[in-house]
Amino acid sequence: MLKTFHVRTDHHDQMIDVTSQVQDWLGEEGVKDGVVIVSSMHTTAGLTVNENADPDVKTDMLRRFREVYPWDHAEDKHAEGNTAAHMKTSTIGHAQTLIVEDGRLVLGTWQGLYFCEFDGPRNRKFVAKVL
Amino acid sequence: MLKTFHVRTDHHDQMIDVTSQVQDWLGEEGVKDGVVIVSSMHTTAGLTVNENADPDVKTDMLRRFREVYPWDHAEDKHAEGNTAAHMKTSTIGHAQTLIVEDGRLVLGTWQGLYFCEFDGPRNRKFVAKVL
Amino acid sequence: MLKTFHVRTDHHDQMIDVTSQVQDWLGEEGVKDGVVIVSSMHTTAGLTVNENADPDVKTDMLRRFREVYPWDHAEDKHAEGNTAAHMKTSTIGHAQTLIVEDGRLVLGTWQGLYFCEFDGPRNRKFVAKVL
Repeated sequence: MLKTFHVRTDHHDQMIDVTSQVQDWLGEEGVKDGVVIVSSMHTTAGLTVNENADPDVKTDMLRRFREVYPWDHAEDKHAEGNTAAHMKTSTIGHAQTLIVEDGRLVLGTWQGLYFCEFDGPRNRKFVAKVL
Repeated sequence: MLKTFHVRTDHHDQMIDVTSQVQDWLGEEGVKDGVVIVSSMHTTAGLTVNENADPDVKTDMLRRFREVYPWDHAEDKHAEGNTAAHMKTSTIGHAQTLIVEDGRLVLGTWQGLYFCEFDGPRNRKFVAKVL
Repeated sequence: MLKTFHVRTDHHDQMIDVTSQVQDWLGEEGVKDGVVIVSSMHTTAGLTVNENADPDVKTDMLRRFREVYPWDHAEDKHAEGNTAAHMKTSTIGHAQTLIVEDGRLVLGTWQGLYFCEFDGPRNRKFVAKVL
């Protein structure tokens, strides 16, 4: 049971809450207990779990990541010029494993699953598999 | 089989070795082979695998994280003021997947599982599920 | 089914593409569908998924990591002097979970699995388990 989710990003850096998309799919499939592995198919966009309440957290996080991994860097060799996006993807991770119990993703009150674009806007995708 | 572990943290930043708690629970449940997913229920505390021998590694790591993600930042918008803790959690990860073989966590000699508090002290919890 | 992979690293910092080693093992074992968990047995070497095409990405990434986590640091207490390697390992992760479908690792066009040495050269190992 491999599912592909398509994500259209609108900005260069963006965190998109995909929790409900994954939860809805689990409901459609009737998944009760297990884990779901979600995995970005890209090297400049990843997935992380973080705050789902105050949108300022996303703004702050994307800006903090730009400070730690500045886009322009005189020593970067990679011709595409997006080494910073590769750094951010390996830092947060290309994939996450989430627990499912009684048909629900087991997340804390303030936790949401975010698809993180670091070199957009682009058409992106991630896949999900249940075990 | 979903297990909740409660952790009381004592400091603002803290790495607490929870390897034996998880190992003991696997023993009680009679788990022989598989994997265990451990997942923090918070967005300002995560889990990582790192050195279990010299306690100076923890001290160094927490200080290094504070340098990369300083607590006070003039541009942060998030009203709680703990954006740095959100950054650290997404950097190390909110969850880890550990292999179990012959009833034991498969870890290297110097590897331990750490619950990492980045905005304490608080009462925290993480969950574990075996597959 | 626990498999140990041995890796000889040649440099202090190095990203080694191990995708085909893992894929070949899955083929030998006849694994069709599931997930494979790969886990470094070290605290100064980890695993990440990133670009498999332009080798400059690896060069850039290793240099960027050295900038964020400089090797020499006056305040580090750890006697081995390799705190930076511990930081990098927790940042990228000691382990990754990859999806397998129709006998193939489910990776994007540009994604490869890398064993990342941060304190070499050394003889290293990582383990893999299929679920």
